[in-house]
Amino acid sequence: MSARVLIVDDVPANVRLLQALLEAEYFEVHTAMNGPEALDVVQRVRPDIVLLDVMMPGMDGFEVCRRIKANPLTRQLPVILITALDQPEDRNKGFQAGADDYLVKPIDEMTLLTRLRALARFKFLQDELESSIGDELLLETRVDNEDDKPARLAVLLNEENANGQLAQWLREMHEPVMFSDPVQLLEGVRAGEFEGVLLEMPLNRHDTVRICSQIRAMTHGRQIPVMLLVHKADHKELAQALEVCASDYLNCPISRDELAARLRIQLRRWRYIQRLRESLRQSVTFSMIDPLTGLYNRRYLFTHGRAMVEEAAQRGRALSVLVMDLDYFKKVNDTWGHDAGDAVLQETAKRLSKQVRKLDVVCRIGGEEFAVLLSGSDGRMARMVAERLRCAIASKPFKIPTEEGEKDLHITISIGLASFENRNDTLEVLLKRADDALYQAKQQGRNRVIHHDPSLSSEEKAS
Amino acid sequence: MSARVLIVDDVPANVRLLQALLEAEYFEVHTAMNGPEALDVVQRVRPDIVLLDVMMPGMDGFEVCRRIKANPLTRQLPVILITALDQPEDRNKGFQAGADDYLVKPIDEMTLLTRLRALARFKFLQDELESSIGDELLLETRVDNEDDKPARLAVLLNEENANGQLAQWLREMHEPVMFSDPVQLLEGVRAGEFEGVLLEMPLNRHDTVRICSQIRAMTHGRQIPVMLLVHKADHKELAQALEVCASDYLNCPISRDELAARLRIQLRRWRYIQRLRESLRQSVTFSMIDPLTGLYNRRYLFTHGRAMVEEAAQRGRALSVLVMDLDYFKKVNDTWGHDAGDAVLQETAKRLSKQVRKLDVVCRIGGEEFAVLLSGSDGRMARMVAERLRCAIASKPFKIPTEEGEKDLHITISIGLASFENRNDTLEVLLKRADDALYQAKQQGRNRVIHHDPSLSSEEKAS
Repeated sequence: MSARVLIVDDVPANVRLLQALLEAEYFEVHTAMNGPEALDVVQRVRPDIVLLDVMMPGMDGFEVCRRIKANPLTRQLPVILITALDQPEDRNKGFQAGADDYLVKPIDEMTLLTRLRALARFKFLQDELESSIGDELLLETRVDNEDDKPARLAVLLNEENANGQLAQWLREMHEPVMFSDPVQLLEGVRAGEFEGVLLEMPLNRHDTVRICSQIRAMTHGRQIPVMLLVHKADHKELAQALEVCASDYLNCPISRDELAARLRIQLRRWRYIQRLRESLRQSVTFSMIDPLTGLYNRRYLFTHGRAMVEEAAQRGRALSVLVMDLDYFKKVNDTWGHDAGDAVLQETAKRLSKQVRKLDVVCRIGGEEFAVLLSGSDGRMARMVAERLRCAIASKPFKIPTEEGEKDLHITISIGLASFENRNDTLEVLLKRADDALYQAKQQGRNRVIHHDPSLSSEEKAS
Repeated sequence: MSARVLIVDDVPANVRLLQALLEAEYFEVHTAMNGPEALDVVQRVRPDIVLLDVMMPGMDGFEVCRRIKANPLTRQLPVILITALDQPEDRNKGFQAGADDYLVKPIDEMTLLTRLRALARFKFLQDELESSIGDELLLETRVDNEDDKPARLAVLLNEENANGQLAQWLREMHEPVMFSDPVQLLEGVRAGEFEGVLLEMPLNRHDTVRICSQIRAMTHGRQIPVMLLVHKADHKELAQALEVCASDYLNCPISRDELAARLRIQLRRWRYIQRLRESLRQSVTFSMIDPLTGLYNRRYLFTHGRAMVEEAAQRGRALSVLVMDLDYFKKVNDTWGHDAGDAVLQETAKRLSKQVRKLDVVCRIGGEEFAVLLSGSDGRMARMVAERLRCAIASKPFKIPTEEGEKDLHITISIGLASFENRNDTLEVLLKRADDALYQAKQQGRNRVIHHDPSLSSEEKAS
């Protein structure tokens, strides 16, 4: 993995040292010697991560960080503060400025590289989702005031700590659920019950990294925040834990402020990713749905329908297509107005959907025209379904709104039917055949089902 | 990183050996002793990667691989064949069965682990995109016959090979562009001109891994296939190259079939990811657009508009909202029919869009109702824009289709205007105020702009 890293420090020797370290690991390094230059590079180069020295003349690192985090376009850019200041209040100042991490000099190389890789992985996922969402929806996805609300956390501590100060703090900030059995914790995470996990390291009776890796091996656990509470940090073991799975760690003894800050950072990041996903899922759903009737739309018919036809061809499965059109619908609109027309379309959608199975696809193609794809149904079965659909429309009057209150309207539908016949049939061919049959149904007096007869070409039938 | 790996081998000792190796690296391991059991586990556990022994009694590894790849639901699951068979024809048989990689025993541990991690990273990205797309669109995204067409490849070989057998093979299979300068190659990749990159390793005059990492540091280069052509393989160096950046490698001397197969695998995977992205982008776009007019829809107004209001509040920027409604539009539909009505809506959309700046947002809220968000415009400026929009509709007749040919229709629009006034204003509040003003415009005779007067409550004005 490589990534673009911006190093900001006013001491050239420091810059060169970090630059050499990162370039040896094949990161792409950019540098800046002061705050304003850093902000400029952030805009121009769009780095993936910023390593930011705190003590600089003029604009200090806290201020640079604040400005990066105040700009909606760079708010999600990870910033690691690097400093000789190691007092708790300095740390808090850093986190309050919005820093994603805070490393105290002298910096352990392995820790830094592991941090960078973990942040880069997350940044790449974020970039991927953001670029799918595009600029138009992104702005709104970024704004959320719910990001700091209390979270349900799965917590596994050694017995002697399960009721101590830490547990107390967690209860004050969030909604911790204390586990003693990793299996139960994993089940809860798998069921999506938590927004974060806290594990003590080492645990007296379990392998922390193993539990952590089991969370990461779940499809839904891949990005959930997993925080380690570390005693007697063995650097190598910790680096491995971060490489394999952990999102962040806290060294014991833990300060309340740092616990709060690091949890907040992890939760915000996770919630942002979840929001991006949700926004994408919603967009996909909306893009396939006709807003008036809630049926699938034309786009869906042509994407999903094509795949259904290919599947039928490959597996030799039956497939039938109905194309249908409400009879004399223009009259409804002209006589009773648009609202009445819309009510008829909505009721039609309901009745059609009720008569088919879940795996069948009902679409509104446009205006008063509908299509149904019947998966696994040959011509004979499809004919029965079509007849059922025709009856569902014709058998019971439609209620429409008029200026004098509700009114009953008698509505009928004409249906053309075509079935998948040979491996060369495409969706377009099937729809064309069904359309021809629909034309026949209209010609022959409407309110009927016509099954396309493959032995006649459409020219012959139209004559 | 952790992942679910399925090990399939009929020799228990082999299974145990691999299992121990992978579990030490914190992979989640599942096992199967024969083909049918493997296919069952694939369905149940949904592993991220399959390690598959070739020589098994009953169903051999080739057949298991073929079946995994024949099922649309598991086609994208990476399969690594592991075997003692090291003849070129065995390898080809493996690739023809659809294997993603082919490792010959005894297996080098580092190579295997690096492969697994690279495949897992790719699989995770794929899972992420697939889960956003959802089952409905996925099937169709998976089907594509274009995946094996020739690709434009950026190639950098040492001078002595640039005109040799390899270059010849590449020209026969794909569209290689030969570079001698890495800077030019990187520019081409950055510009999105290529679907894959081939680099010789080592290069006489450049650092292959460095070039490779520079590709990966580009946002658009993160997943592009990068293939190494390796002489004198130094295992450690190669492992680092794979860890940092390379997608795959070929050992010299290269066989034509293996070159073709490995390129095909990489290109298919890349094209599939690109298709997933494209499908997501399209969905997002569709989900925000009114299909009749091409304007933004109601959903977009409420997502993006909300973000615009929050931005105005945070930055103290001006923002105005217009809500507008075509006058007597029902008559157009009733008298001239639906097609005429649609033509009027489409022409209205065109005229409105032409009169505003790119950063303003024009939406069709529904029916004949539109809204415009004017970013950075205070009431005075917005009033001028609104007046311009009103004129753009009223000043020139609309052409509508009728049964007797085109006809000119005089159309007007009423507009209500409201501006962002204080930090507590929400989008809903602004729209409500603009709506009240629109009501006044209709009351006062239509074809006019009414600016909501903040000094009057809506009750007073309505009286």
